[in-house]
Amino acid sequence: MKIVITNESGFTDAHLAALREIGEVVTHTDTNNDNYAERLKDTDIAVIDCYITPITKEFLSKVPNLKFFSINSTGYDNVDVDAVRNAHIAASNVPGFSTEAVAEMAIGLMFAAVRKIAEGDREFRNGLAAVDPGTLEAQKYMGFNLYGKTLGVVGLGNIGTRVAEIGKGIGMNVIGYNRTAKNIPDVEMVPLDNLVARSDVAVICLALTAGTAGLISRDKIAKMKKASVLVSIAGMGIVDQNALIEALNSNSIAAAGIDTGNELMFKAKNTVLTPHIGYNTRESHENMGRIIVENIKAFAAGKPVNTIE
Amino acid sequence: MKIVITNESGFTDAHLAALREIGEVVTHTDTNNDNYAERLKDTDIAVIDCYITPITKEFLSKVPNLKFFSINSTGYDNVDVDAVRNAHIAASNVPGFSTEAVAEMAIGLMFAAVRKIAEGDREFRNGLAAVDPGTLEAQKYMGFNLYGKTLGVVGLGNIGTRVAEIGKGIGMNVIGYNRTAKNIPDVEMVPLDNLVARSDVAVICLALTAGTAGLISRDKIAKMKKASVLVSIAGMGIVDQNALIEALNSNSIAAAGIDTGNELMFKAKNTVLTPHIGYNTRESHENMGRIIVENIKAFAAGKPVNTIE
Repeated sequence: MKIVITNESGFTDAHLAALREIGEVVTHTDTNNDNYAERLKDTDIAVIDCYITPITKEFLSKVPNLKFFSINSTGYDNVDVDAVRNAHIAASNVPGFSTEAVAEMAIGLMFAAVRKIAEGDREFRNGLAAVDPGTLEAQKYMGFNLYGKTLGVVGLGNIGTRVAEIGKGIGMNVIGYNRTAKNIPDVEMVPLDNLVARSDVAVICLALTAGTAGLISRDKIAKMKKASVLVSIAGMGIVDQNALIEALNSNSIAAAGIDTGNELMFKAKNTVLTPHIGYNTRESHENMGRIIVENIKAFAAGKPVNTIE
Repeated sequence: MKIVITNESGFTDAHLAALREIGEVVTHTDTNNDNYAERLKDTDIAVIDCYITPITKEFLSKVPNLKFFSINSTGYDNVDVDAVRNAHIAASNVPGFSTEAVAEMAIGLMFAAVRKIAEGDREFRNGLAAVDPGTLEAQKYMGFNLYGKTLGVVGLGNIGTRVAEIGKGIGMNVIGYNRTAKNIPDVEMVPLDNLVARSDVAVICLALTAGTAGLISRDKIAKMKKASVLVSIAGMGIVDQNALIEALNSNSIAAAGIDTGNELMFKAKNTVLTPHIGYNTRESHENMGRIIVENIKAFAAGKPVNTIE
């Protein structure tokens, strides 16, 4: 069997050695829409980045020998699941590899937004002297203590549950909203309207689906407290971005920290915006390589796991 | 009695009302070395920012009627204590008003440095597209999970003890170094050499004194792990800055997060640098105003508190 790794996917030497026990392994780091057909034409098994080369009907028509692929992400919104089924091949994703990393990123963005860390860093480098408390200039950098404040977690899946746990560890009061019932110690479950109205920091931890798109609407943002902060590590389609930008620019809310934003957000003040790096830790990469090896081994043994269906 | 507030010091209307029960209150927001003599010449009590107008022998000679002053900070390294004593006037500082704020800032800088939040924000705004895990570019933003890692706290006063507590709340293993013995639950006390060698994140929480100056020497920095991160909310005189800059630029350590740095630090890569805003929260300002009112009331009642001696 031939196994082609198309792009960087967290493999260590030990992972590659494990794959070589199954078949011939070929690795690439720069596969894309222009070269995948050539690289995968006689391949049985492939590791594919569906955000670089989306898995479409056309894609599948160009890789006639492919029997199985694993993507290198949890999300598979760029995989045409019907087309995969019709092509009679198996496919797996990588669930949960970055739960801790993304939850910690949400907490990091909370601190950065509440305490104006990115803004302070940028302006310090641009020549601002240290800010003495006795100057009016210092008021610009006034944040608030998190201890004793209310953290509202929207979506209590694995990531949201870990965000809630860290929030409690910091000494915050944690409230949560989830579509289905959840029972998490010391987390008061409340309706979404109640959550946005009470939170000093609201963190969006939902997957973007047809059911969650637009959930944090203009109406919900209008209910947020004036001094409150919005954090999101979720797809931006969940939030009404125009309403969020207006709320920030009119000081209706104090700040936002967003890992998955887009250029539209540059129009808003009081933001910390990172380029979708929430998943990006050493441990996530190690987990990714390990889980993909497990996916390939399971397929080779005739019992695929983590299947996309 | 006349009470003059020289600079912004966190007073609310309630605080000012309390002071008016003691005497006539005059407030300024822009007092400095050029105008303090005129403003304080017939004043009994003053609130002074010693980092804007240092309290020297000369200062005291120009305010002959002053009987008591409170500074608006914890640190009083800009107060000539001998000169105050010789002038036979009383003075108080504002201890502990920002303990929680500074401890939370240390934790915020840890997240920002470990997860490259300020750098990500800066480069995203400069046109970097979202970073796909399948690209080599993503490796630049690789941080590490904090859960299960070792947090070393240097100096376990009120701030360091709170940093240790939050670290435990995040799920880190916490070790500590303190000049005198400390007994804090689940914090293993170790010698400083051991702490710097074992820490994934080392946080400096010491006051800058003759005894702590230079404590984090070139030798100590050389003992730090390659992937480790240094955080400081303490005076930079504690750290050998040149050695720190060399360690960062040669990747001997991974990153640094510093709230009290200076322009010298701009030479180092992988840093997040904030302009001394660690104290700066709503709660700190409220505490500051409240404690200064307590200082003035106590002096007026003949029993000064928080005295600088």
